[in-house]
Amino acid sequence: MGRTIRLALVQMRCRADTAANLETALQRIADAASAGADLVCLPELFRTPYFCQREEEAAFELAEPIPGETSEALAKAARSAGVSVLGSVFERRAPGLYHNSALVLTPDGATAAHYRKMHIPDDPLYYEKFYFTPGDLGCPVASTPAGRVGPLVCWDQWFPEAARLSALGGAELLIYPTAIAWETGARPEGEAAEHDAWETVQRGHAIANGVFVAAVNRVGEEDALTFWGQSFVADPFGRVLARAASDREELLIVDCDLGEVESVRRGWPFLRDRRIDAYGDLERRYRE
Amino acid sequence: MGRTIRLALVQMRCRADTAANLETALQRIADAASAGADLVCLPELFRTPYFCQREEEAAFELAEPIPGETSEALAKAARSAGVSVLGSVFERRAPGLYHNSALVLTPDGATAAHYRKMHIPDDPLYYEKFYFTPGDLGCPVASTPAGRVGPLVCWDQWFPEAARLSALGGAELLIYPTAIAWETGARPEGEAAEHDAWETVQRGHAIANGVFVAAVNRVGEEDALTFWGQSFVADPFGRVLARAASDREELLIVDCDLGEVESVRRGWPFLRDRRIDAYGDLERRYRE
Repeated sequence: MGRTIRLALVQMRCRADTAANLETALQRIADAASAGADLVCLPELFRTPYFCQREEEAAFELAEPIPGETSEALAKAARSAGVSVLGSVFERRAPGLYHNSALVLTPDGATAAHYRKMHIPDDPLYYEKFYFTPGDLGCPVASTPAGRVGPLVCWDQWFPEAARLSALGGAELLIYPTAIAWETGARPEGEAAEHDAWETVQRGHAIANGVFVAAVNRVGEEDALTFWGQSFVADPFGRVLARAASDREELLIVDCDLGEVESVRRGWPFLRDRRIDAYGDLERRYRE
Repeated sequence: MGRTIRLALVQMRCRADTAANLETALQRIADAASAGADLVCLPELFRTPYFCQREEEAAFELAEPIPGETSEALAKAARSAGVSVLGSVFERRAPGLYHNSALVLTPDGATAAHYRKMHIPDDPLYYEKFYFTPGDLGCPVASTPAGRVGPLVCWDQWFPEAARLSALGGAELLIYPTAIAWETGARPEGEAAEHDAWETVQRGHAIANGVFVAAVNRVGEEDALTFWGQSFVADPFGRVLARAASDREELLIVDCDLGEVESVRRGWPFLRDRRIDAYGDLERRYRE
């Protein structure tokens, strides 16, 4: 059942110069293709600094339509490099209606999936509910030459529901463009616990669903946040196949044998035993 | 918000002599109470060898009603020791209708929760679908002096849905009586990967739900299986607070500050952001 694809995660810094950020991303796509990648993944909102550290109306100027400059540049890059690309766009859908979106583009430049972030955080320094309308496109799965890819975004990482919905849609690979950080100067022991929980919950999704899971994070200090990098890929056993550094840009290239999705699920047939007759309360906020 | 309870996990061997197994369990409950435990948890089907290694009608003779000998002995032990007890019973509900059940008993001997295993495995050497009818009582939560306890059983460990349903029912602590093993003489590297996946997916439930999670496993060789012990408790960050050995009986005693359920969830308010409007497909077998 061997069916190995080469995955490339672009862990990058995102600077104030949005044109330069796009240039960097396009260069990394070309580099990854030269290294034989089949699918190249960019971090969340890679075109801009993480503007959600504050609530400022001016930041809506950074949004753009789909199709638009970023999506078209990525489609062109996919075509010219002959790879699939997973990119992230601050989507302007209508006046006053914006999404945190991800696109999966195939080597012919077509859009195989358009995802709008379903779970929106709101914490000090992550004021995303101000900017992003919760997605209304569910959890799509893209059919690509690099396999069936479920694009999800950052905060979705903590929600088993999103991973399960993608797996039920046929995803073999869940990919989370991410912008997750420590507060600069936070306590080191707290940092380690946060990072470990973040990686562990995602490894759990890989295991529970029998899929590959990848997260691609930005890196570097931006105002009060230090993005912690450590982009990684886990196999359907939840084993981390590769992990990038916490403090520098990296192009992480990992081979994934998608045949393992079926071989692991034959041993652990969780999809067989789900109690779909008894899950109605998952649609409730709370049971009391 | 500090509210510390002392949890005791009884990692034990289960022998052919079912009376002796009960005697051992009752002794451990008394020992744990002497050590100040508030809640004592027994492994899955602790009264018997793991009979599911084969399909044999004679094994149904091991089943008993609830209330019945085991449940009454546990209730009496809870009363006399003044602790809450989580026990496991091979339940005979009606002729031809049997369940793999768990009971939570309070220090007054009352049954605070009756759970019937919802997810039933069927693998070589774990022929549970032959013996156990899938549960029809959902995922109950027991209110006890040791907190709000969600009893689940073994194979449920792999299902994020069960953990979530228990958390939505108010559980602060998920407890999984377990009988999980390596095939005796299996490859060591496979053993490590299986154990790690098992622990990781449960740590993921702790993180995704902001709850404590405990698994209490049997230990020792029985026919073709070597039960791997390693009973453990994880906090709402998914950190393993304590883990028993893989090869011997142990009474694992762990203090858990249930106040952490609220403090961790204030930092990671996943219950706030669940998309209950978009989870309908979780009740489908597959989406294509």
